[in-house]
Amino acid sequence: MTKITKENITIDYVIRATWISIQKMYNEEASTFDSTMSGAFALLSVDPKKGTPSSSLGPKMGIAATSLSRVLNELEKSNLIKRTSSLEDKRSIIISLTKKGLKMRDISKEYVKDFHNTIEEEIPKEKLDTFYEVINKINEIIIEKRKKKK
Amino acid sequence: MTKITKENITIDYVIRATWISIQKMYNEEASTFDSTMSGAFALLSVDPKKGTPSSSLGPKMGIAATSLSRVLNELEKSNLIKRTSSLEDKRSIIISLTKKGLKMRDISKEYVKDFHNTIEEEIPKEKLDTFYEVINKINEIIIEKRKKKK
Repeated sequence: MTKITKENITIDYVIRATWISIQKMYNEEASTFDSTMSGAFALLSVDPKKGTPSSSLGPKMGIAATSLSRVLNELEKSNLIKRTSSLEDKRSIIISLTKKGLKMRDISKEYVKDFHNTIEEEIPKEKLDTFYEVINKINEIIIEKRKKKK
Repeated sequence: MTKITKENITIDYVIRATWISIQKMYNEEASTFDSTMSGAFALLSVDPKKGTPSSSLGPKMGIAATSLSRVLNELEKSNLIKRTSSLEDKRSIIISLTKKGLKMRDISKEYVKDFHNTIEEEIPKEKLDTFYEVINKINEIIIEKRKKKK
């Protein structure tokens, strides 16, 4: 990627390009385990002890129902999750992790942590603090813009 | 969104969540024109004067050929772009903007600029500089990690 400066690029582009790079990195790592970033993200979004209703997974992950269902089918085929009906509400499906799924969840978690730690080691704390401050402010600006729209 | 701090969240999550928020904002705005963010992004990626070969649009936008073709079909149906064969190479398809497409491109460009300007107005310059510095460093770390992988 070309060096990012305020002069050659808009801020939305920078955030998008960075997210795409992170996705590529995660997908490359996940492919070692015949998995994908979305698969790993789903495993991380399921409560490892109690499981999670499938209806709340999509909103939690911020993806559409059709995409979620594709990801869950893949995970079920690989024997990483299982679907069971809720005891309280037969219509509700609970996603829970298999033993293999729990193991993959731990591996994914380690990798995410490792990336996060590398960043914390290589970037001075006060600069990271400013980064978080700026990104919070950007999110506030977005909320304001979307409110005005309505 | 919950306030982002270094304590409650990893950096990949923050970047993803922010990108999703930007997408939502852009899609809401685009829907006013019966369009989508991807449609607007494609219009912005086409050279307004000479047009752009469809084969280079996907890489430029960072999306897969199938997604690109869906977006281009929508834009063609809305009479925003046209497809013509290249004069030099009959197999190559050139995407160019119609008059209506040029107008929509300008509107999209204005909206992106407006968002960028709001950020530059509301966030002090030195903080934004640090933000760009940190995000460059994050991209460097990703490149390093992906290199090691290979």
